[in-house]
Amino acid sequence: MIRINENYTKLASSYLFADIARRVAAYVAANPSKPVIRLGIGDVTEPLPPVCVEALRAASAEMGERATFKGSGPEQGYAFLREAIAQNDYVERGCAISPDEIFVSDGAKCDCANIQELFAGDIRLAIPDPVYPVYLDTNVMAGRTGPSIGGRYQGVTYLESTAANGYVPDVPSVPTDLIYLCFPNNPTGAVATRAQLAAWVDYARRNHAVILFDSAYEAFIRDPQIPHSIYEIEGARDVALEFRSFSKTAGFTGTRCAYLVVPKGVVAYDTAGKPHSLHNLWNRRHTTKFNGVAYPVQKAAAATYTEEGRRQTRALADFYLGNAKLVRQAMGRLRLRCVGGDNAPYIWVNTGRDSWEFFDLLLNRAQVVCTPGAGFGRCGEGHVRISAFNSRENVVSALDRIARAL
Amino acid sequence: MIRINENYTKLASSYLFADIARRVAAYVAANPSKPVIRLGIGDVTEPLPPVCVEALRAASAEMGERATFKGSGPEQGYAFLREAIAQNDYVERGCAISPDEIFVSDGAKCDCANIQELFAGDIRLAIPDPVYPVYLDTNVMAGRTGPSIGGRYQGVTYLESTAANGYVPDVPSVPTDLIYLCFPNNPTGAVATRAQLAAWVDYARRNHAVILFDSAYEAFIRDPQIPHSIYEIEGARDVALEFRSFSKTAGFTGTRCAYLVVPKGVVAYDTAGKPHSLHNLWNRRHTTKFNGVAYPVQKAAAATYTEEGRRQTRALADFYLGNAKLVRQAMGRLRLRCVGGDNAPYIWVNTGRDSWEFFDLLLNRAQVVCTPGAGFGRCGEGHVRISAFNSRENVVSALDRIARAL
Repeated sequence: MIRINENYTKLASSYLFADIARRVAAYVAANPSKPVIRLGIGDVTEPLPPVCVEALRAASAEMGERATFKGSGPEQGYAFLREAIAQNDYVERGCAISPDEIFVSDGAKCDCANIQELFAGDIRLAIPDPVYPVYLDTNVMAGRTGPSIGGRYQGVTYLESTAANGYVPDVPSVPTDLIYLCFPNNPTGAVATRAQLAAWVDYARRNHAVILFDSAYEAFIRDPQIPHSIYEIEGARDVALEFRSFSKTAGFTGTRCAYLVVPKGVVAYDTAGKPHSLHNLWNRRHTTKFNGVAYPVQKAAAATYTEEGRRQTRALADFYLGNAKLVRQAMGRLRLRCVGGDNAPYIWVNTGRDSWEFFDLLLNRAQVVCTPGAGFGRCGEGHVRISAFNSRENVVSALDRIARAL
Repeated sequence: MIRINENYTKLASSYLFADIARRVAAYVAANPSKPVIRLGIGDVTEPLPPVCVEALRAASAEMGERATFKGSGPEQGYAFLREAIAQNDYVERGCAISPDEIFVSDGAKCDCANIQELFAGDIRLAIPDPVYPVYLDTNVMAGRTGPSIGGRYQGVTYLESTAANGYVPDVPSVPTDLIYLCFPNNPTGAVATRAQLAAWVDYARRNHAVILFDSAYEAFIRDPQIPHSIYEIEGARDVALEFRSFSKTAGFTGTRCAYLVVPKGVVAYDTAGKPHSLHNLWNRRHTTKFNGVAYPVQKAAAATYTEEGRRQTRALADFYLGNAKLVRQAMGRLRLRCVGGDNAPYIWVNTGRDSWEFFDLLLNRAQVVCTPGAGFGRCGEGHVRISAFNSRENVVSALDRIARAL
């Protein structure tokens, strides 16, 4: 008789964004005449940069001619893209990352979800709270946690991000093995300084731990003092992997391209204490379970690194940051404290009340969808995330409705 | 101290196709003047059907306009594609599969690799030999096998496909829980009759087992008596999942689209004996770890179901089957017994000698790349797989070279 992976039964019944979608759908069904503005899920709204559209169209044409047709490419990504990433995102920022340390994928969500497969079942996890649910849920599915008691899975070291620490958690007082960090943060929009990241790299080195650094939102950093990559910190090449994505940088949420950086120096150990290269292990995983990203999509991603592409993607991030600034100003006028929005597309609002209650209030009174903080963890209670991903017109209208509703 | 998933150390040192690529690269480097013809890896060579190119180009343009831009779509795929799949691939063949039982993905390789996550760590596996390496390797990585001894992982029931059973394995004499089947088969090209598949469905029902049916090559079936889908067998809806792909059907190996069918009736059990819907579990897995297929790619896949698209994809499969026929005829003239090639793009040649030796012989004497059967399992020894995926000119030339070399 076939049996299931019972770890799945430990999971909270459904995925946060599916919960939100259900509530919004129910509201829309009951109130068809009231248009809803979505500042919740964090999906981009503006079209692909013209260089990407042109690259997609040109590559599509190549696929239609035998001489230029592309079948299976390298699972790790085409050299033209890996080289452009290494040069533009790393070497030009002083980080010694080589093209063969870049693994191109169809999404940072997938990479964040899949990376845990490389590690033993009983390693000690350090996971932020609040947090993008994928880090935690995928470890629950893999059996690395106990059951959830009072909203927290047993056996996890939660890294609390609160108003008291400026939403940037300190290193734990206990040793842990696998540490998830995300800056600019989802959901809080907070960024980590060089000194804060250096403390994490130092902690990882002392504990023979590995940091999984999610910098999917680095394109929104405008403060020149804030690192865009963990590899700007000395010693990080030995202890950190980094997730990046074109989703928010270039509006690729419906086009699907991302990458994972696995420097050759990062190791994990077997029970005999022998080090194993994570680069080798990830390469085995990636080539066995994945078959590469569509050629036209890789061409579109590469186009973002041309001079014109860099200008267009910069303008795209600036546009959303303009929305974020309006949100922050509006929250200030409502005397709601918040963080984020200056170097990130998210604003984390300290509502001072139950976060699902505030979500329902905004939905019912202002027809605005935000994301309830409690969905991101216990420390998210009392907060909501407002996303800057929408048109200027919708953001202005949503803020106006919120001002009137509160 | 962080530790690795030590199951990875049980894996044979590298992936079959990477091994082949290395040998071919070494030969090409040493013999730059001798052009090599690849009939090995099974990658398509002919351009995308025009309807797909046009759909890709049109969707790319949509992505460039705010009004038609698509961000994150449903993780399970757009309704337009799921509905076209259900109608064309199932309902029209008399199979009661509904659109919400279809999960669109970026590759059948990924689906085949990921599906095992839903099951307990100690279920009993039945895996064909020879076989596409992904089924086995992903279960080794997940710890469902013992170490490899004499080329076979301990704890696996190998389903032997040999000349004696016409390369279609019989149901085992012992109970197993999770059964991988692939017809038309990769690597043998053999197909299973309705009666043979019915025996497997019956076995699964008697043992409360689940069948994972890989029909990525169904588009090559020309014999009207051969089922294209496991769901053509009565009772299969309760015990079988089916993998399909646009890779070989429509030349999508570089475009990336596939799907997994999870009927709502299929269950697996917890330790208390309570049944759990695999549809629910896979939906949780898919929405947590995957973010959907690129919109332009889904549009291109949907285009294969238009009248024009069906004609073009049919012609594409016919073209490769024409190559396959030439291969079979040439093997016949060389008095080499073979199977496949009539309802499949692969020809499985019984070489009567060591398969890597035969691989090297074809590479060195004929500059033709095939796939050594031993790479697919112990029963593959003595065989090679020849793929029909190449231009007519290359196939004719390769066969001519082989005839002269042998």
